[in-house]
Amino acid sequence: MSEFDLIRKHLTGIGARRDDVVVDLGDDCAVLRVPHGRELAVSIDTLVAGVHFLPDCDAESLGWKSLAVGLSDLAATGAEPAWATLALTLPAADEAWLAAFCRGFAELAAAQDVRLVGGDLTRGPLTISVQVHGFVPAGHALRRAGARPGDLVCVSGALGDAGLALRHLQRGEPLDDYLRRRLERPVPRVELGELLRGLASAAIDLSDGLVADLGHILAASGCAAWVELDRLPLADQVAGVVAGQAAGGADWGLPLASGDDYELCFTLPPEHAAELSVLAAAARCPITRIGEVVPGSGLRLLTSDGHPWAGTVAGYDHFHG
Amino acid sequence: MSEFDLIRKHLTGIGARRDDVVVDLGDDCAVLRVPHGRELAVSIDTLVAGVHFLPDCDAESLGWKSLAVGLSDLAATGAEPAWATLALTLPAADEAWLAAFCRGFAELAAAQDVRLVGGDLTRGPLTISVQVHGFVPAGHALRRAGARPGDLVCVSGALGDAGLALRHLQRGEPLDDYLRRRLERPVPRVELGELLRGLASAAIDLSDGLVADLGHILAASGCAAWVELDRLPLADQVAGVVAGQAAGGADWGLPLASGDDYELCFTLPPEHAAELSVLAAAARCPITRIGEVVPGSGLRLLTSDGHPWAGTVAGYDHFHG
Repeated sequence: MSEFDLIRKHLTGIGARRDDVVVDLGDDCAVLRVPHGRELAVSIDTLVAGVHFLPDCDAESLGWKSLAVGLSDLAATGAEPAWATLALTLPAADEAWLAAFCRGFAELAAAQDVRLVGGDLTRGPLTISVQVHGFVPAGHALRRAGARPGDLVCVSGALGDAGLALRHLQRGEPLDDYLRRRLERPVPRVELGELLRGLASAAIDLSDGLVADLGHILAASGCAAWVELDRLPLADQVAGVVAGQAAGGADWGLPLASGDDYELCFTLPPEHAAELSVLAAAARCPITRIGEVVPGSGLRLLTSDGHPWAGTVAGYDHFHG
Repeated sequence: MSEFDLIRKHLTGIGARRDDVVVDLGDDCAVLRVPHGRELAVSIDTLVAGVHFLPDCDAESLGWKSLAVGLSDLAATGAEPAWATLALTLPAADEAWLAAFCRGFAELAAAQDVRLVGGDLTRGPLTISVQVHGFVPAGHALRRAGARPGDLVCVSGALGDAGLALRHLQRGEPLDDYLRRRLERPVPRVELGELLRGLASAAIDLSDGLVADLGHILAASGCAAWVELDRLPLADQVAGVVAGQAAGGADWGLPLASGDDYELCFTLPPEHAAELSVLAAAARCPITRIGEVVPGSGLRLLTSDGHPWAGTVAGYDHFHG
C-alpha cells in the first residue's frame, strides 16, 4: 500500500461528523468554518518514541494519548474542541499498528466531538505530532498570565499517577488498572476548562509536573505562590510511595515533577472560593485547593506545619531530563 | 538551556506581526481570529532527515523549506497565508543549528506575512512538522475535485529542478545556484493560487511529481487527461538530462516523478484560455499549458507526434520509494 492508500484507508472519517468542516481530510488543505464571535485556539504537540512513551507501548493507547495531550491544552485555554490534524512518522507501513493507533485516536475524538481533518504519513523514526483546534468566545480564553496575590491555587484530579505507572513499567513491575489508565488513557479536563472561563484568573495543564507548570503561571503573572505538600491530591498508590520514603524525608518527586498528569492547575480569585465544590460537581472531577498566590516570585513548598520544605525536585526537561 | 528557554529564545516573535493573533506563541494555546466571511484552510506536513532531506542539509535552508512546503498547500487551495505552528524534534539542543533554522523559517514567514504562533520542541531524531493556516473567501477554496473534460491542464514554473539538484548532491557533483535555490528555497506559488480562485476548476501542488499529483486531481474529479511530454516546462539543465538519455529513449523521470517541485498544477475551463498570459504576468511566474482533461480515467502521456509514450515512471512513495 502506498502512503496515499494508507491515509485513505486509515485516517479518513476519524471522529465526529461536523457541519463546520467544508473540506475534509484528503485535499491539499482542510477547509473549516469558525463560528462568528468565537476565536480559534490551537496547539501542536509531538510525542517521540523512547522520549515520551516506551517504544513497545500499545498502539491503541498511544493513539488515544496523542490526542489527549492536545485536548488538555485546549482545556487549559477553556476552549471547546473541534478539529485535529495528525502528522505520523512510522518506521514501516505496519497496517495492524496503524489501525490500532487510529482506533484509539478515533475513540477519544468521537467522545470529544473532534474531527480529524488533516493527516500526513511519512517514513522515519516513530514520531507523532498532533495539532488540536477549538473555539473560545472572543476575549475569554484562559491564559497563564492573570494570577493575582490572594488567588487560590487549585488542581484537578490527582497528581503523580502517570509517573508512578511509568516507574512500574520501567522496572518490569505489574501495573493496576487505575495507574495504567492514568498513564495510557488520560482524560483531558475539557469540561472543567470550559467551566473555568470567567472564573479562573490563570490556568495551565500539568504536562511537565506541578513545579514546572505552576512555575509558568507564576512567571507569566509576575507573582509567587506557596503550596502545602500535604494538600496535594494523591491516589493511594502515590501516597504510599511518597510516605514510603519517609526515612530520608518524603519523596515528593512523583506528584511535583513526574509530569504526564494532564490535570489542570488554575488560580481562582478568593471571591469564587465558595463555588469550588459546585465546579467540581459540574466538571465531574475532584478539585483541590493546594495553596495561594502571594506577591513576589517563585514557588514555595511548605510542610504541614507551615515550614519551608527542605527537599528539591526538578521539572522534567526533554533536553536535560 | 531548557526546552522552555530554547522556545522562548528562538521561536518567539518569528514572522510578521498580525492583528489577528490574540494570544501568541508561549501559552498553552495560541488564540487567533479568523475574519468574518472567510474560511480557514489548514495543512500539516512533516519533513524527516534522511527521507525528505539529506541529514547534512543546511539548517537555514531547511527552515525556509519547512514552511514553504506548507505554504505551497495553501497556494493550491487559493488561500492567503496567515499563521504557522512548528513541532521540531532535535537530537540535541544545538543552539547554532536552531538559530539558523529559525532564520530561514523567519525569512519566508516575514515575506509571506505569516506569524509563527505555536511551537513545540522535543528531543529525538530530526523531524519537522509544520502546520500552516490561511484564509479563503467562504465557498471559494480550490480543490482537487472539479476538473471537467475539455479543461486545459496547466503547470506553473518548471519541473524536475529539485530532483536534478538532489541527484547532483547525492553524487557529490557541483550544484549551480539556480538548482540549489530550487531544491532548498522553493518559493510557494501563493499569488498564483489566490488568482486562480474563481478561474481554475481544480488545483494541486506538485510535491510528489506531476504523474502522482495530477493523478490525484483526475481521481478526485473522475476524469482522465493527456499530457504532451514535449510541452513540459523544463529548465535547460533538466532538458539536457532528459535529452541526454535519448539512446535508451528520453528519461522523463525528473519532470514527471522526482517531486519537490512546489509548483501548482491546475485545470482551467477552456473559456479562460485567453487569460493565461495575463494570469502569468499577474502571478509573476511562467504558466504552461501541457495537456487536456478528457472523459475516462488515468493519465496518458503523449510524445510530440501524439502517440502514447512507451516509458514508465513511478511517483515518489515514502514507504516504497
